[in-house]
Parts: sequence; C-alpha cells; structure tokens
Amino acid sequence: MNDLYKEHYLLRAIELAENNAKNGTGGPFAALVVKDDVIIAEAVNTVTPDKDPTAHAEVNAIRIACQKLNTFRLDGCQIYASCEPCPMCLGAIFWAHPDVVFYAATQQQASQSGFDDSFIYEQIALPNDQRKIAFIHKIVAISETPFQQWSSNDQKVTY
Amino acid sequence: MNDLYKEHYLLRAIELAENNAKNGTGGPFAALVVKDDVIIAEAVNTVTPDKDPTAHAEVNAIRIACQKLNTFRLDGCQIYASCEPCPMCLGAIFWAHPDVVFYAATQQQASQSGFDDSFIYEQIALPNDQRKIAFIHKIVAISETPFQQWSSNDQKVTY
Repeated sequence: MNDLYKEHYLLRAIELAENNAKNGTGGPFAALVVKDDVIIAEAVNTVTPDKDPTAHAEVNAIRIACQKLNTFRLDGCQIYASCEPCPMCLGAIFWAHPDVVFYAATQQQASQSGFDDSFIYEQIALPNDQRKIAFIHKIVAISETPFQQWSSNDQKVTY
Repeated sequence: MNDLYKEHYLLRAIELAENNAKNGTGGPFAALVVKDDVIIAEAVNTVTPDKDPTAHAEVNAIRIACQKLNTFRLDGCQIYASCEPCPMCLGAIFWAHPDVVFYAATQQQASQSGFDDSFIYEQIALPNDQRKIAFIHKIVAISETPFQQWSSNDQKVTY
C-alpha cells in the first residue's frame, strides 16, 4: 500500500491541523480521505465548537466521505492524518474499510501536548473492570435476543 | 461504581437493540446515557440507514447526550450498552468521560453474529504496519507545527 502514498496530501492535513489550532476552532488535528488521487473529504477536529467528543478529524472525514460517496464503506480510499489515529479513530477506520492510513505525528507527540491518545491505548489493554472508566459486564438472560432478531431478519443490511 | 447500576436501564437498551434488528433500521445494538437517574439519551446503531460507519449506538448516544447537556464531557453520567463497546466506542467513551459503562452481551457474542468487534481488539494490539489495514508512519519535518500552534494559543479550549 506504500506506493499509494503522496506526501502533498499529508502536508495538506498538517496545514489544516495547524490552522485549526491557530484559529481556536478545535484541536490540532486534521485528516483527508483520498480516492483515485482526488480529495473526497477534508476535516479538522471540532470537539469543542461542536460540543461533540467524537468529532475527531478522522471521524469527521470518514462521515463526510461516506455522505459524498453515498456508502458506509470507504473501499479504495486512503486516509491521511496529521497525527496517528487514537483508538476511537482506529476503530472508526476499521469499520470504514479504507485501504491504508498514512500519518505524520505519533501518539507520543500527541501525548506530550496533553492529549489522551497513549493513555487510551494503555487502557484498552487492561481487563474491562480495571480501567479508569470501568466497563462492567452484567449477566442478563435476554442479552442474546438482539442477535437472534438480527439472524432471523432476512431483509437485514449487513455491514 | 457498581452501586450506580440499575437493571431496568440495561433491559431498556436490549429492548431497543432487539427492535432495531427486527425493524431493519440498523445493527442489533443500543445504548443509553443516564444521569441522576434520568435517561439523557437513547440511541440505536444507524450505520446502514445513515450510511455512516461511525454511527454505532454508543457514539450516537454520546453525541445526543452532549448536545442535550451542552457540553463535550459526560461527567456524572452512566452508559448502558446492550453489548460490550467495540474499540471505536471504547475510545469515544474515554473521550466523553462518563463515570462507568454497564453492558450485557460480550464482544464474543457480537463476533459470533458476524461483527468485527473482537477482530478489531486483536488488530489494535498489533504493530501499526502489520494490521490488516496498515497504519504507516511517515516522517515529515513539520509534523510538530500543529502542536506548536496549540501550545502558543492562549485562547484555546482544552478537552
């Protein structure tokens, strides 16, 4: 996938991230979705102006690109990110199925600037009930019923 | 945090997930945000109708709750999820800062119904460039500039 890399897209992501930090319009992050050498989506982090903790650059870019392409999958696309995606964005990327991600700054650089990226990567590796935010499993007899409905629905759209 | 648990909220999440699967309006998942024993947000998975791979129940619930509470943090809130959150939703939850998460079905149950939750947890643990979707670090001289702008912006809103 390395042969798909074009540096000018990564420089564009960094430029957008820098402007976002300068203008106070969100965190210092940006991302692009590129397909067939065309930019499908450009996005910056908008957590604070949108009051949305999920509005990271990569999530925003994926959402915009999917709306433009009218699909919930980004097959054939490349993602360029000014910084290594956090676990939330990594998960979003796996659900979106692009070909590859190219990133510039590392999670350690993000951490040095006060962002929780590395911390969340550490937390994921812990047992669910030992995380700083505990994820507590409750045994409920009907926990399987949503999956049973899913299995028996012949009209379902899988993803 | 276990003393905050109330089973009827988890049963409500499972009921919503079951209905969503039955109605063909998205995947078999739902989540609630509860604060001071009041439901702030109820949401289901809307990946396929919204054509948005990030529209998982927990992400949707967090976004709705933050809009209602006019904040990007869910301090003092509990999240109830019909199924163990996937890595994307785990990340979203850490960024949102609720007190605790209670969930019913496990990632293994989700996996048995064809969802990638366990797979993505396995992928996160791999080196970046060895994942099924490669995350490739590119050395770019200006990678630090967004963080430098962030540090020097006295008006920035941290999150």
